[in-house]
Amino acid sequence: MICQKPKGMEDYYPEEMDTRNQVFDRMKTVAKRYNFQEVSSPAMESFELLSKKEGEEIRNQIFTLEKRGSEQLGLRFDLTVPNVRMFIEKQKSMPKPVKWFSIDRMWRYESPQKGRLREFYQFNAEIFGSDKPEADAEIINLAIETLLELGLKEKDFQVRINNRKLLEGLLEDFLPEEEVPQAIQVIDKKDKMMGAEFDREIGRLKSKGKAGRIKALLNSSLAQLKKVEMSNKAREGLEELEKVMGAIDYKNVEFSLSTARGLAYYTGTVFEIFDRKGEFRSIAGGGRYDNLVALFEGEKTSATGFAMGYATLKLLLAEKKLLPSPCPGPDYYVAIVNEDVKEKARELVARLRKKYAVETDLTGRNLGNQLQYASSIRAKKVIIVGPRDLKEKKVTVRDMGSGQEKKVALSKVV
Amino acid sequence: MICQKPKGMEDYYPEEMDTRNQVFDRMKTVAKRYNFQEVSSPAMESFELLSKKEGEEIRNQIFTLEKRGSEQLGLRFDLTVPNVRMFIEKQKSMPKPVKWFSIDRMWRYESPQKGRLREFYQFNAEIFGSDKPEADAEIINLAIETLLELGLKEKDFQVRINNRKLLEGLLEDFLPEEEVPQAIQVIDKKDKMMGAEFDREIGRLKSKGKAGRIKALLNSSLAQLKKVEMSNKAREGLEELEKVMGAIDYKNVEFSLSTARGLAYYTGTVFEIFDRKGEFRSIAGGGRYDNLVALFEGEKTSATGFAMGYATLKLLLAEKKLLPSPCPGPDYYVAIVNEDVKEKARELVARLRKKYAVETDLTGRNLGNQLQYASSIRAKKVIIVGPRDLKEKKVTVRDMGSGQEKKVALSKVV
Repeated sequence: MICQKPKGMEDYYPEEMDTRNQVFDRMKTVAKRYNFQEVSSPAMESFELLSKKEGEEIRNQIFTLEKRGSEQLGLRFDLTVPNVRMFIEKQKSMPKPVKWFSIDRMWRYESPQKGRLREFYQFNAEIFGSDKPEADAEIINLAIETLLELGLKEKDFQVRINNRKLLEGLLEDFLPEEEVPQAIQVIDKKDKMMGAEFDREIGRLKSKGKAGRIKALLNSSLAQLKKVEMSNKAREGLEELEKVMGAIDYKNVEFSLSTARGLAYYTGTVFEIFDRKGEFRSIAGGGRYDNLVALFEGEKTSATGFAMGYATLKLLLAEKKLLPSPCPGPDYYVAIVNEDVKEKARELVARLRKKYAVETDLTGRNLGNQLQYASSIRAKKVIIVGPRDLKEKKVTVRDMGSGQEKKVALSKVV
Repeated sequence: MICQKPKGMEDYYPEEMDTRNQVFDRMKTVAKRYNFQEVSSPAMESFELLSKKEGEEIRNQIFTLEKRGSEQLGLRFDLTVPNVRMFIEKQKSMPKPVKWFSIDRMWRYESPQKGRLREFYQFNAEIFGSDKPEADAEIINLAIETLLELGLKEKDFQVRINNRKLLEGLLEDFLPEEEVPQAIQVIDKKDKMMGAEFDREIGRLKSKGKAGRIKALLNSSLAQLKKVEMSNKAREGLEELEKVMGAIDYKNVEFSLSTARGLAYYTGTVFEIFDRKGEFRSIAGGGRYDNLVALFEGEKTSATGFAMGYATLKLLLAEKKLLPSPCPGPDYYVAIVNEDVKEKARELVARLRKKYAVETDLTGRNLGNQLQYASSIRAKKVIIVGPRDLKEKKVTVRDMGSGQEKKVALSKVV
């Protein structure tokens, strides 16, 4: 079979494409109301850049290009890396903060699963140049507002929010500093694991004796934590967290100390959005990454952002019957009764197309087959151009919904 | 420099992105009026599929992925190959003709030049399932109408049209059949070569003695050709050509026997669109390819299509001062005088954003700096939320165009 589509990648036929366009358009509408500007970058970046941000896991998932010339290139696995590169290139000349969004595709070599593809689309937004909680809240408000714009209700999903300084500060209190990143990686996977599996993973940390304490910590409410004595770092994180939560315009936001976002580069606020029933993978996630611009050799700049995947979102929207339905067929199908009227029909089509979506016969088939085709493509109205009508400078217009027909003067059709 | 963009690929910062979006939106508008349906396919295909259609030249330009698992993949170099694959997968269930378009990116490993990039965007359309001249004309009308929709005039560009059966038939008359493809490749490059270079290339053909005859042939007008005695194949091509030309709604279409489109798979109509001054590479090109679906192991289906590249189009639109100008800034910037009014300002922002594009302060900077930022992002109006105004439940609204200010009741802002 030569015609095999690559594994874990999707074709969008007209109906799915139309649905996707409508979802993306709504994302764009919301992003623009929040005054984010759209940007777009090449599909590939230097392998060096791609592999700088993250750990071994992601590096192994990069689709790398066969080397030609001196460039070693890979396909982007997210939109943050290229956006940071783009930001750095012009950071001196742009008024800050810079607020960007993109809706585009990217690639990871993973095992395809429900809601996880090798080629996938994300709605991505970043704010460069503000270290304030208002910027984190702006990002979270944008994510929530986008889901509401798509027809979801606040009760359909939940934002789980945390702060990396708080989590790290609390862990550093009783774990050796070098073990904290590993602990955070395990904590991050907590919600994806069964209880026993989590116990086993957390038991694997070097400081085995501390597993109980970690688990107790993760179960703390915000009210409980506030009473606890903690390091300055943790306290700073807690204060940021409260300010961010205070600046979010919606109610469906909950503190969750186990929301860690495994990636090493987060430095403050972290959040994930899940469907309320917990059926699907996370719909969106993000947080603050104040060190990434400097890591990529730009001038140190605070940044915060999020990404929302289309694959999981689509599953949730489908379950809630909120997937936008594909557009209807063309406004008109112009049927051509015979060769003699072809010229007149063609003129009519050209005229109508200045304003309407119009289909006509391109195959020379007979009238019956034309009408059948018009119905199969869900044309709203059919205009039958025939020699007898034309003698009276008229055409027959049939409404395909009601089936009603009437004769209309050719000059009055448009 | 870790932050280097790959060679021959473009970033789109907000202004260029906005321009690109507006151009693509107009393409979509026209495509929909012609009742083409949008589709989208993965960035990559199996290398086997990609390398089946074309000759060695294109095969060497494919960006191939390092092999993982059993799949040997490459990035698509056009949209016709994936669209044909998609068509074949559902060809049994779709009412014919099928009319598809895509606007998307693709990749070729070439030396970057003006109007030629390694990652580039094309507007692409295909009709599957009609062998009639009306289908070719539909494709050409769509291409022309798109350029007109972008503000170009008929006099700004020219469609050069030919028919492969006609050209091949005429050549076969005095060249051995096996030399015809080579001759066509040379003829195709005629317009890109200086006269002497073309003479040299055509002199390299095995049947050297025929160079003069080929050149004479290429200079024939349609009127001259019609009087010539020719093979059935050539005659059929000539008749098709005349029918296609007769069904095109515009005047800027000229017969050009040297428009050959080098690719081996064209079987009938071929055309290219150039700017009238001949300054740029071709803006669009396409034709009929009745054998490709069968070559890809689908059920034999007639097809015709075209592609229009954004890189060259952009150069032409820029020259004609027709590149859509980027959108203006946000409708409102909500300035926050001090901490005390932050809460009220935030509520106002959330309210306004239900309808307008709104920016506000995310950095905690003072009023003067906020106003400077508002002006730098070209906000249309600034709403100043200050403690004294708020006591009277008012805010100050400043029109950034006229500089006029007025106090407005908070409840009446929206």
